[in-house]
Amino acid sequence: MHILLTNDDGIDAPGIISLVNVLTPIAKVTVVAPDRERSASGHAITFHKPLRVEEVRLNAEGGGKGWAVNGTPSDCVKLAVKALLSHPPDLIVSGINRGPNLGTDVLYSGTVSAAIEGILFGITSIAVSLATFTEGSFATAAQVTKTLIGQIWDRSLPPHTLLNVNIPPLPRHKLRGIRVARLGFREYKNIFEERRDPRGRVYYWLGGQVVDCAKESEDIDIGAVKKGYVSVTPVHFDLTNYALLKEVKTWGLSL
Amino acid sequence: MHILLTNDDGIDAPGIISLVNVLTPIAKVTVVAPDRERSASGHAITFHKPLRVEEVRLNAEGGGKGWAVNGTPSDCVKLAVKALLSHPPDLIVSGINRGPNLGTDVLYSGTVSAAIEGILFGITSIAVSLATFTEGSFATAAQVTKTLIGQIWDRSLPPHTLLNVNIPPLPRHKLRGIRVARLGFREYKNIFEERRDPRGRVYYWLGGQVVDCAKESEDIDIGAVKKGYVSVTPVHFDLTNYALLKEVKTWGLSL
Repeated sequence: MHILLTNDDGIDAPGIISLVNVLTPIAKVTVVAPDRERSASGHAITFHKPLRVEEVRLNAEGGGKGWAVNGTPSDCVKLAVKALLSHPPDLIVSGINRGPNLGTDVLYSGTVSAAIEGILFGITSIAVSLATFTEGSFATAAQVTKTLIGQIWDRSLPPHTLLNVNIPPLPRHKLRGIRVARLGFREYKNIFEERRDPRGRVYYWLGGQVVDCAKESEDIDIGAVKKGYVSVTPVHFDLTNYALLKEVKTWGLSL
Repeated sequence: MHILLTNDDGIDAPGIISLVNVLTPIAKVTVVAPDRERSASGHAITFHKPLRVEEVRLNAEGGGKGWAVNGTPSDCVKLAVKALLSHPPDLIVSGINRGPNLGTDVLYSGTVSAAIEGILFGITSIAVSLATFTEGSFATAAQVTKTLIGQIWDRSLPPHTLLNVNIPPLPRHKLRGIRVARLGFREYKNIFEERRDPRGRVYYWLGGQVVDCAKESEDIDIGAVKKGYVSVTPVHFDLTNYALLKEVKTWGLSL
């Protein structure tokens, strides 16, 4: 099996290195990742400047090399599949992201976008996130990822399959299991902090705190992770609202 | 009615100015848009630097002012709704984009992402694109947009409603009507052009040509626009693949 690894935290990030460490013994692993952090880059792609690729030494246990790209996670997958690799990989794993990619936040996620790019090429893809910005073991998360890959790979996966995986920052023995869950809705409060620079001009920092929604069940990714489960959500790239499609057809819109 | 306008081509782009021209007589119009072109920015948001807002004179018929933001289209909507406006707008119109936003390409679209940002706030939003990179009249496209807004506004719209509108680059009398259509699949060939710089180092330009898929019907946005119809697609923000959700639950994944 040939696995392509990418991320949005950059090629030096501990999350991707932990995947290299656990996957190299079981598969051929290729790393093509941004040369620096590209978090919250969404599904951005780079049209306005050329892309450069540099071969770099990985900070992994067994050494090895990877390709650092001066672009977004989506650029990395496009470039790997269409320019760098002689054959498409069997699987793309994007991550392990530092921080959760849950609910509507997946829309902003470079990690998930890289995996969407993979399924647009018809390659099974997994996006993996460690649901914490502070403490948490990437080594444990990488072991969980390896376990999941083993179980998924035995299935006859439909084409264009993407699984979005979020792992709570708990020791292995405290993880309660896996919940297959739909995406929830993440709401933020205090989204902007307004400040003044030394010359008195206003500027804004984007931030905000998640609005805690106590009623979220384990059937929703946010609730599952909160309760100590690894959430697994199948994601697709079709944003059509089919329910509304039927309704809008009855409106008789005309020019 | 209070309409917020934004785009990804920048606040000086003819597409957004044409909307200011046709909508100012029928509504209160506020413009909050990127200070420069931010095409293909996807749903990127700006965390790593503060956002600045500058009041600028619009190049519109009736003059007027707008806010230019050093961020992405999504940043503009967030900033408008959560920091600049005292009340949320009744409607957000994103565009008119120079170039189509059809099928899977909506994933990369800053124009559509701004509208998704709007519906995340529960504000009805419309993304509008003129489906050409060369000739085509933004004035005609703006008239079409105005007509659509009038018809949509009479409906009791469900919350979180987004309509993605693509207008063929035809004179008004050659537009064949409106088709409510689902998103298609856009495939590209020759995605990268490999070149060498004067020092012999390789670099890549992202490009590619759309693979023409003759069989696309009018029920798909790509086919509808190709046949001269204005395509209208309801879009939502839930990327959960519900069909696969059921199946993955039967897999018995475990740690």
